[in-house]
Amino acid sequence: MIRLNKNYHKLQANYLFVEIAGRVNEHRAAHPDRSLISLGIGDVVLPLPPSVIKAFHEAVEEQAHEKTFRGYGPEQGYEFLREAIAENDFNFPGCAISPADIFVSDGAKCDTGNFQELFSKDIRVAVPDPVYPVYVDTNVMAGRAGALRDGHYKGLIYLEGTEENNFAPSPRDLPAAGADLVYLCFPNNPTGVAASRDQLGEWVEWALSRNSLILFDAAYEAFVSRSAIPRSIYEIPGAEKCAVEFRSLSKTAGFTGTRLAYTVVPETIIVDGMSLRDMWQRRQTTKFNGVSYPVQRAAAAVFSPKGQRETRRIIEYYLENAAVIRKAMEDVGYTCWGGKNSPYIWVKTAEDSWAIFDRILNEADVVVIPGSGFGRLGEGFIRISAFNDRKEVVKATKRIIKVLR
Amino acid sequence: MIRLNKNYHKLQANYLFVEIAGRVNEHRAAHPDRSLISLGIGDVVLPLPPSVIKAFHEAVEEQAHEKTFRGYGPEQGYEFLREAIAENDFNFPGCAISPADIFVSDGAKCDTGNFQELFSKDIRVAVPDPVYPVYVDTNVMAGRAGALRDGHYKGLIYLEGTEENNFAPSPRDLPAAGADLVYLCFPNNPTGVAASRDQLGEWVEWALSRNSLILFDAAYEAFVSRSAIPRSIYEIPGAEKCAVEFRSLSKTAGFTGTRLAYTVVPETIIVDGMSLRDMWQRRQTTKFNGVSYPVQRAAAAVFSPKGQRETRRIIEYYLENAAVIRKAMEDVGYTCWGGKNSPYIWVKTAEDSWAIFDRILNEADVVVIPGSGFGRLGEGFIRISAFNDRKEVVKATKRIIKVLR
Repeated sequence: MIRLNKNYHKLQANYLFVEIAGRVNEHRAAHPDRSLISLGIGDVVLPLPPSVIKAFHEAVEEQAHEKTFRGYGPEQGYEFLREAIAENDFNFPGCAISPADIFVSDGAKCDTGNFQELFSKDIRVAVPDPVYPVYVDTNVMAGRAGALRDGHYKGLIYLEGTEENNFAPSPRDLPAAGADLVYLCFPNNPTGVAASRDQLGEWVEWALSRNSLILFDAAYEAFVSRSAIPRSIYEIPGAEKCAVEFRSLSKTAGFTGTRLAYTVVPETIIVDGMSLRDMWQRRQTTKFNGVSYPVQRAAAAVFSPKGQRETRRIIEYYLENAAVIRKAMEDVGYTCWGGKNSPYIWVKTAEDSWAIFDRILNEADVVVIPGSGFGRLGEGFIRISAFNDRKEVVKATKRIIKVLR
Repeated sequence: MIRLNKNYHKLQANYLFVEIAGRVNEHRAAHPDRSLISLGIGDVVLPLPPSVIKAFHEAVEEQAHEKTFRGYGPEQGYEFLREAIAENDFNFPGCAISPADIFVSDGAKCDTGNFQELFSKDIRVAVPDPVYPVYVDTNVMAGRAGALRDGHYKGLIYLEGTEENNFAPSPRDLPAAGADLVYLCFPNNPTGVAASRDQLGEWVEWALSRNSLILFDAAYEAFVSRSAIPRSIYEIPGAEKCAVEFRSLSKTAGFTGTRLAYTVVPETIIVDGMSLRDMWQRRQTTKFNGVSYPVQRAAAAVFSPKGQRETRRIIEYYLENAAVIRKAMEDVGYTCWGGKNSPYIWVKTAEDSWAIFDRILNEADVVVIPGSGFGRLGEGFIRISAFNDRKEVVKATKRIIKVLR
């Protein structure tokens, strides 16, 4: 008799964004006349930039002719793309990341979700709270989390993000027994907080001293606008021995619907005497067949000088949106985090966050994300996303303020 | 201290196709002057058909304009594509598969590899031998396989494919204790053998009587040219309660480099009182973000009347290649399977299959696949693929015969 992976029973009822989509659809059905604005899930609205579109079309055309047609590509991604990434993202002094360390995939959600497969089931896993739910749910499915009690899984270690630590917990917040694997995300989703060089330095030093591993989610690195703030964990010396970094073109270049991400597994990470890079390569060659060739060509154009200029303008546009939202919320007395090196504004509401979500949805016709959807410590907060058209952002912000002030 | 998933140590040294690529690269480097022909990995060579290219370009263009731009899509795939699939593939009498049962993904390798995650670690898994290595390796990684001895994992059940059973093992070949999960692939990779209605009926009857589940890999269904042979397991009454089916556009429409597959999980499959479809949906929403939008549009064009005519011609071309290869091998006295409802020809050589692989590579400059790469029972066979240009196929076949006759 076939039997289920019982760990699935331990998951919370619904994946956060599916729950939100359900409530939004209900609202739409009840009020088909009202114009709903989403500052919720964090989906981009500006189109792919011209140089990306050009490269995309050209590669589609290659697939139309026998001489230029491409079948199976390397599971790890084409060299032309991995070289462009290494040259653009990892070309700072002291950085030893090479194209061979880069693995192209169809999403940072897949990669941050799948990476835990490489490790023993009984490692101690630390996740932030508030947290991007994928880190937690994939460890629940893998059987590492134990039972859920009061919003926390007994088998996971929670790094509590609070006003006091500015939502940037440090290794000193770990229990005495430590942790073997730590998920970090900076600029953070959902709080929008960026980590300083010193803060990341403390994590790297800790990981090296304990032989622990950091999974560093840098999906929002492109939004860092102050040069003092690291965009990559590899700006910290020693990180190439203890940290894996996840990046994505989703928010950087509008690829949420086009799909391309990449994960860096430095050659220099050795676990149990094995090369972690070889392990990930084995995992990927066994369970993945590479990203669509035309999408890889479109992605490579992002890293051309013209592509870089075009995507920079898109990011600045979203950052200006974020500034509009943050200023408006602060003007009416709300304390905010993020929105400066991040497209997300984390707002302290001190109310039940699903209640305020429903109130903003029903009275302002705006979708935000309830903080508690990101974990127990998110209760009393909401996340507002800057990914929308400027006019819509201004309109939505006014509507929210009218409801909340 | 971070520790590895020890099950990875139990994997055979290399993923088969990576090992072959290594030997081929070595040969190329040693003989840069010789023209190598691949009848190996089974990668298509004909370009995407015109109607697919047209839809692909149009969708890329949509991504260039704010009004038509698409960000995150449904993880399960767009409805327009799932409806087209249901209408084309599952529209035969008595078939209850609906668009809601279809999950679009970027590859059947991912889906056949990931599906085992839904089940308890201690279920008894049966795989064919010879076998598509992904079924085995993903269960090894998940800890279900135990130790490797004489080419078989102690914890897996092997359904032995032999000349005697025409490489189509039946439930009667299972041990008395039975199996909870069975991987079947018809038309088969690597043997090219298609299963009859009676053979599949026996499997469905068995699965229903035991509450077991069949994972049915139909990646090569488009090559079935005799109407008496089922293209889908759902042509067998009752299969919608005990079988998941995997399909792919890789070989059907030349999508090996463009990437699109789909998995059918009928609403009617209940395991441990839970809907298996809901479980897979939960898995996919947590670990996957959907397929690139332009690729989904390109895929939908495959199911248009024009797309169907165009892809049919491509498949017939490859089937004619297969007939050329099979006839040539039979003419010089080799016994063959497949090549009729399949792009693969399985040839009995009665020699060590890596030795014959090396001999064909070095003396004929042709790449085939050594049967033993597909499992212990593959020893003494080679797999020849029909995916190449006709002229190359004819030339390669002549060269192989010169070496082998």
